[in-house]
Amino acid sequence: MSGSEKAVVLLSGGLDSSTVLRMAGAQHPEVYALSFRYGQRHSVELDCATRVATAAGVSKHTIIDIDLRQFGGSALTDDIDVPKDRSDAEMSADIPITYVPARNTIFLSFALAWAEVLKANHIYVGVNAVDYSGYPDCRPEFITAFEDMANLATKEAVEGRSRVQIHTPLIDLTKAEIIQQGMDLGVDYALTSSCYDPGDDGRPCMACDSCLLRQKGFLAAGVTDPLVAKFEQAPYA
Amino acid sequence: MSGSEKAVVLLSGGLDSSTVLRMAGAQHPEVYALSFRYGQRHSVELDCATRVATAAGVSKHTIIDIDLRQFGGSALTDDIDVPKDRSDAEMSADIPITYVPARNTIFLSFALAWAEVLKANHIYVGVNAVDYSGYPDCRPEFITAFEDMANLATKEAVEGRSRVQIHTPLIDLTKAEIIQQGMDLGVDYALTSSCYDPGDDGRPCMACDSCLLRQKGFLAAGVTDPLVAKFEQAPYA
Repeated sequence: MSGSEKAVVLLSGGLDSSTVLRMAGAQHPEVYALSFRYGQRHSVELDCATRVATAAGVSKHTIIDIDLRQFGGSALTDDIDVPKDRSDAEMSADIPITYVPARNTIFLSFALAWAEVLKANHIYVGVNAVDYSGYPDCRPEFITAFEDMANLATKEAVEGRSRVQIHTPLIDLTKAEIIQQGMDLGVDYALTSSCYDPGDDGRPCMACDSCLLRQKGFLAAGVTDPLVAKFEQAPYA
Repeated sequence: MSGSEKAVVLLSGGLDSSTVLRMAGAQHPEVYALSFRYGQRHSVELDCATRVATAAGVSKHTIIDIDLRQFGGSALTDDIDVPKDRSDAEMSADIPITYVPARNTIFLSFALAWAEVLKANHIYVGVNAVDYSGYPDCRPEFITAFEDMANLATKEAVEGRSRVQIHTPLIDLTKAEIIQQGMDLGVDYALTSSCYDPGDDGRPCMACDSCLLRQKGFLAAGVTDPLVAKFEQAPYA
């Protein structure tokens, strides 16, 4: 199999990256999913990533351990409260406190390392500039700059054998469009998790920014969220 | 203390980065040293980094655990033999097999994350394009591209508060010049380790590419390597 047929996909186990995984699978016969244990307060996300990767039939799913907590600076990894029930205006007013410093830079760097070892030319990441524009490292200009850097960083690129491409198929899609395309590709959203503060059983809080965006997305897509349906049917723990 | 006075320095515990640490210390009153436990086959390097950081009086030394062995692809982290006693021609003929995929990209990404949390504008890395040009991610064009990307990646840069600078003070220096400048700045090279295959006690093999380059550097600088002198005086284990 040639390099052009392999893809490395950053997979958090959330709605966006789970959709990207299937989009990559529709283009490349060999897909490698990469997740990170980076000091998240809960393991729900990684459990979802594992189930999503299995369901998609990836060639390999690797979970890398890194500890961003040593640097601090984020609600997702520090012991501060995740904001709840914020309005659209509050969410878009500033960069969210759930921002993790340089997270996508670090994650894409690991993807680049794995792509080099695999001789894969394609890296997929589910960044999105429409519904959630507050993260600097989710913008197209960042992705382009990373791609330029990547093509100066590796043996394959420097020796002229191949060019690494960073694909961001969700970048201009609304959450509703992402969901619609994902449904067409067979994504089972009941396997995914978007919540910043889920219960131990994976039950979404339905109040954090991420849950609110997901709810609005399913509403706009005219689809019931199968994750919510699953917990509405289940007795409370 | 303002951001412009803080610097993050990538510190391997080798000759080059130990020199850079003192160079940064001469420019910035607060220096933060960052090292990685990345599946090296030996711990000598990190023991040296700790001693070098302490001797330089850094504000903090952080060691981040990451496991690049999960991706494979390098002599430093895989179970293949480190090449010994190679000629200059052999060393410069190709990218060394001790190359670690995307290593500097990953290390600089972590430095960027820490710099953002610290509100430090300066990152120092001991890459060198003269004595050891085989690593793609040691070239000036790679460093410039990384800096461009970094200034699109972070909240501080995007909000216009500061610009991250990647400093490479060794980039155009020969090994002899690095050693001369380091001696002037008070680097104790007996605390450092350059060997790819050291003994458990830190004794250099004197035959790997890195040992050979170090030997030639001290010879050209007209200085005795205090690390070699230390082991010549010590009885063999």
